[in-house]
Amino acid sequence: MEIDTGDTAWVLVSAAMVLLMTPGLALFYGGMVRSKSVLNMMLMSFASLGVIGVLWVLYGYSMTFGSSVGDARIVGNPLEYLGLEGLMSPEAVSGTIPTLAFVSFQAVFAIIAVALISGAIADRARFGTWIVFTVIWATLVYFPVAHWVFAFDATDDAGTVTTYGGWIANVVEALDFAGGTAIHINAGAAALALVLVVGKRIGFQREPMRPHNLPLVMAGAGLLWFGWFGFNAGSALGAGTLASVAFVNTIVATSAAILGWLLLERLRDGHPTSLGAASGVVAGLVAITPAANSVSPVGALLIGLIAGVVCALAVGLKYRFGYDDSLDVVGVHLVGGLVGTLLIGFFAHPDSPAEVAGLFYGGGLSQLGKQAIGAFAVLIYSFVVTLLIALLLKAVMGWRVSAEAETDGIDGDQHAESGYDLHPLRGGSGMIATASALGSSTTPSAAAKEEELA
Amino acid sequence: MEIDTGDTAWVLVSAAMVLLMTPGLALFYGGMVRSKSVLNMMLMSFASLGVIGVLWVLYGYSMTFGSSVGDARIVGNPLEYLGLEGLMSPEAVSGTIPTLAFVSFQAVFAIIAVALISGAIADRARFGTWIVFTVIWATLVYFPVAHWVFAFDATDDAGTVTTYGGWIANVVEALDFAGGTAIHINAGAAALALVLVVGKRIGFQREPMRPHNLPLVMAGAGLLWFGWFGFNAGSALGAGTLASVAFVNTIVATSAAILGWLLLERLRDGHPTSLGAASGVVAGLVAITPAANSVSPVGALLIGLIAGVVCALAVGLKYRFGYDDSLDVVGVHLVGGLVGTLLIGFFAHPDSPAEVAGLFYGGGLSQLGKQAIGAFAVLIYSFVVTLLIALLLKAVMGWRVSAEAETDGIDGDQHAESGYDLHPLRGGSGMIATASALGSSTTPSAAAKEEELA
Amino acid sequence: MEIDTGDTAWVLVSAAMVLLMTPGLALFYGGMVRSKSVLNMMLMSFASLGVIGVLWVLYGYSMTFGSSVGDARIVGNPLEYLGLEGLMSPEAVSGTIPTLAFVSFQAVFAIIAVALISGAIADRARFGTWIVFTVIWATLVYFPVAHWVFAFDATDDAGTVTTYGGWIANVVEALDFAGGTAIHINAGAAALALVLVVGKRIGFQREPMRPHNLPLVMAGAGLLWFGWFGFNAGSALGAGTLASVAFVNTIVATSAAILGWLLLERLRDGHPTSLGAASGVVAGLVAITPAANSVSPVGALLIGLIAGVVCALAVGLKYRFGYDDSLDVVGVHLVGGLVGTLLIGFFAHPDSPAEVAGLFYGGGLSQLGKQAIGAFAVLIYSFVVTLLIALLLKAVMGWRVSAEAETDGIDGDQHAESGYDLHPLRGGSGMIATASALGSSTTPSAAAKEEELA
Repeated sequence: MEIDTGDTAWVLVSAAMVLLMTPGLALFYGGMVRSKSVLNMMLMSFASLGVIGVLWVLYGYSMTFGSSVGDARIVGNPLEYLGLEGLMSPEAVSGTIPTLAFVSFQAVFAIIAVALISGAIADRARFGTWIVFTVIWATLVYFPVAHWVFAFDATDDAGTVTTYGGWIANVVEALDFAGGTAIHINAGAAALALVLVVGKRIGFQREPMRPHNLPLVMAGAGLLWFGWFGFNAGSALGAGTLASVAFVNTIVATSAAILGWLLLERLRDGHPTSLGAASGVVAGLVAITPAANSVSPVGALLIGLIAGVVCALAVGLKYRFGYDDSLDVVGVHLVGGLVGTLLIGFFAHPDSPAEVAGLFYGGGLSQLGKQAIGAFAVLIYSFVVTLLIALLLKAVMGWRVSAEAETDGIDGDQHAESGYDLHPLRGGSGMIATASALGSSTTPSAAAKEEELA
Repeated sequence: MEIDTGDTAWVLVSAAMVLLMTPGLALFYGGMVRSKSVLNMMLMSFASLGVIGVLWVLYGYSMTFGSSVGDARIVGNPLEYLGLEGLMSPEAVSGTIPTLAFVSFQAVFAIIAVALISGAIADRARFGTWIVFTVIWATLVYFPVAHWVFAFDATDDAGTVTTYGGWIANVVEALDFAGGTAIHINAGAAALALVLVVGKRIGFQREPMRPHNLPLVMAGAGLLWFGWFGFNAGSALGAGTLASVAFVNTIVATSAAILGWLLLERLRDGHPTSLGAASGVVAGLVAITPAANSVSPVGALLIGLIAGVVCALAVGLKYRFGYDDSLDVVGVHLVGGLVGTLLIGFFAHPDSPAEVAGLFYGGGLSQLGKQAIGAFAVLIYSFVVTLLIALLLKAVMGWRVSAEAETDGIDGDQHAESGYDLHPLRGGSGMIATASALGSSTTPSAAAKEEELA
Repeated sequence: MEIDTGDTAWVLVSAAMVLLMTPGLALFYGGMVRSKSVLNMMLMSFASLGVIGVLWVLYGYSMTFGSSVGDARIVGNPLEYLGLEGLMSPEAVSGTIPTLAFVSFQAVFAIIAVALISGAIADRARFGTWIVFTVIWATLVYFPVAHWVFAFDATDDAGTVTTYGGWIANVVEALDFAGGTAIHINAGAAALALVLVVGKRIGFQREPMRPHNLPLVMAGAGLLWFGWFGFNAGSALGAGTLASVAFVNTIVATSAAILGWLLLERLRDGHPTSLGAASGVVAGLVAITPAANSVSPVGALLIGLIAGVVCALAVGLKYRFGYDDSLDVVGVHLVGGLVGTLLIGFFAHPDSPAEVAGLFYGGGLSQLGKQAIGAFAVLIYSFVVTLLIALLLKAVMGWRVSAEAETDGIDGDQHAESGYDLHPLRGGSGMIATASALGSSTTPSAAAKEEELA
């Protein structure tokens, strides 16, 4: 097929927008922790930007979109596109776009999937262990699961399969337009497994742990919403009706989820909050992600509203069951992903681009069944394998910083930095004691000099 | 007409960019208030994202772009596209783009128009009343006015009108490329009416009320400028010469407005300020919005320069006349919108895509007259109807929080949150008194727990 | 040639993304200085947005892309497109996009090139002198150098040159895809010259000068990366294979540079830092800028990794040699630009869109020689001319604020503002002393009122 410049422009800009989601997530998560751990929180996202970008080029793309090893539909051949060999050719085309545009778009999906998990273990995890975790988790969990969900078979003119893709996309035929299962249920289930191994923060449920910078949280939510248009409408891999349907659904579901979350807070607590609005944004976006191409705008509105209410309730589960999912990765991404993935079974609209009828449009229960199989297969696989990885790393490297470091602030312990130094005259003549005590971050050399001064 | 993928890509990304303007506005406005009300300020924008996104899908698009009820050119038929029924079809095309791309692009215009108003009533308005206001104002003011200005007639091959649009676009034929009247004069006039009803902040003109976070203001201004390229150049609804003219004009007018505002400050006050630079960005963007397709780059430069100087003077009017337009919605959006809309009458360039000659290019006074009619019709309608809505809500719900809540901070009173908790060790062992006193925002459950602890 | 809507959409959105880089840079630089000078730092970027946007339209585009004066390949004719005269015509097409799309894209390159320099002279420079510097430097350095590197000859069907471009692009034939020499070496060399004239901050190497807001630095780095996709992949001036190769290279080089910088910090200092991650982002982006179209993804990975390590070492040079390049413009942009430009000589891949073989792919030393000529010609010209400009301005206007102003904070001295006022109750009843002492920034009128109150 020929390259279409409009489709390519749309996919490239979508890839840039999805890349921006990870720094956006760093702000969203970073603002929610206490100021003593903001840098570590943000660095976990930046580590994903570093590690996964490199892995994707080396073998991640190939494990995800190479033909299934042994035609088994489990994982792509890591050697097929090792180092993206051969894909610079103008002949390398996927659909109507250059293959490297598709590679770029999928790279940033892998990056954000890993970064999402980090919110669950805020304030307490050793940075080195997190780095190693990202390498192993991407390799053993993300790349295979994305293969299951996103790799469609290629067929020849006679309809014979020439390249085998993943089992959920091709055998179960569950609908997941932009990653409700592959990204959100996957990351959410991994987060749950991880917190069970890593354990609770000191003071969890006994001390207040309120966000240190809510405007930062809202800025992050805004960037996430912006980027998510690339995530959802970009998944059309072209600029036409399909992308436009996904786009409008991504507006209205998110709007409705804000209202749902704020309404629940108003009724339950008496006050709608900014944290609720920002969380509602993410809940709505998560829920519409799998469904963006298969429901009508009114269906999207209802899915968003339901997701806003359900996730606002679900974030309280950690207090009931006592797992310290610090920034609600389970409550928002796992639960929101399940809401969206399963509601497709009810709301799928026959006039939508997916052309599937859900229960409410006379389609019976079959699609709901497919959705459930896809969702729970990913949930269980991700939970179990992540649990094993986390236990292994606990034994080999250890997950926790010292109790003293956690209490004093992980930023100082792991990074020799602190997030803010806002006193207007600090660093001028006098008043350097605090700066030195927390370590400096100008440059290592400067840090060394400060220590001499202190 | 066929769908053009390049045009569609451009309109979709423009829609995403314009959506980002509202969180950008939340930062811009949020940084300008005192830290005790930053969350309420930002939440007013997020409320618009929630409410208007939903209304637009339900009936807003239909009231704006449905055919005029009774061919009267006053308001579109709200039932025609109720719930966007039928628009997912690949046959639903507007110009060269899918209709749902156009729907998405216009949705985010409606969202930001409402959010703009909120800056005028910073620090003092009950959140519930604001929510209700957004519903009523969008329905009675924005949707009709956008119909007047943005809904062009559709005609058949013989030139007979088949679908009737609004009176300003089709009868007066005032030029408003991207919303100088429909958005900025409209929101600015509404802001003026609203502050007259809501009243002044306690301490207005007696106490300093300086921005609590100017870097946040500048970050917001940067995001607004970025998004505004979608606003202006996206209004071409395609990617070609028209969009490119609008784009370059949106650069140079804004650049010149920064210089104009800073120069005025330097001459009048002795110091150019960061608040001035950020405000200059917005003033230039507002002024070039209606004119982006009808003036040359040099014309745009002059319009920007004039807008920078005039708006820098206009923001002082509130002190002279004693209305508390807290964040200068009147001074920047109403005045900037008038500057841009009326200067078209002088600077319209016959070689521009609009192919209209203004006074300076031999076109006489006729275009200036049309511009004045459009501008003042919107100004008066918006002011009067907003005044009535505001008075109604004052009687029914009340606009003001208690004096004590306003003094202590609206964030705590309306949202049980505070924007920042920057002490590096806060929330660790000890030192929880302040956190508890201001209420917590981690989650409602956590908040409840804190209260037990306090 | 005909206008292609997909190519135009991509270049326009790229231009918007590159514009956003300058506010992103303002956050990146602003967060790195002490809180007493954050606004001045950010305003230097906003001044570039104001000044260069205007100059570009007036004569900058013409000096850069007009035909060489006297066919000498030194500088374009400033009168040829004075005020962008005549370019609104639908006939004005450059390649497959409207000329004004190209003009817009190049405008934002000029803006960021100037803004980059400002980081070197943080905390101490008079704002008025900086403004004048931007005008002179753009005119005497940036416009000519960009002509050398970016202006390619136009030829007729017979291959005869009809319009003469710059000497580096057409005679030396050095590869610089998106501005490694024209932007980064150029700005870095200018920064070095400037700091030698402006001198060190009071307390340099004696007092800690640590970043006051690292989350702001990371937010800036995120926006820079996002915008840089426009910078690099947008330089393809179309949406196809070339843009896609540049895009994936811009992901992987940056990812690898983060890892390189963090690894070096870990080994040398024991702690990977957030400032290191953010700096690694920029180092990788700088290094891949010239090479984005001429290396394979694996080559890009290696260039990024090398740039991360080398720049992390290079930022320490200022302490050894005693020049106060405050925010490491030399260490990151000059050194990173040299790394990327010279490594093309080694890593250029014959299958890449540039179709050039470097030393490692059997191409011999010839390309490396061309790269070195291009790089050092720009370095030397920029350094020498900037030195002369800086000395002239030192004599005529002076560069430094008073020692007292520098110690107390340049924001108060130059802008009568301060960045933050975070006390939750400040500005309510009582407690106005501090606010007044630092000057107010609500509006000039308000400032005047405060002074009366104080």
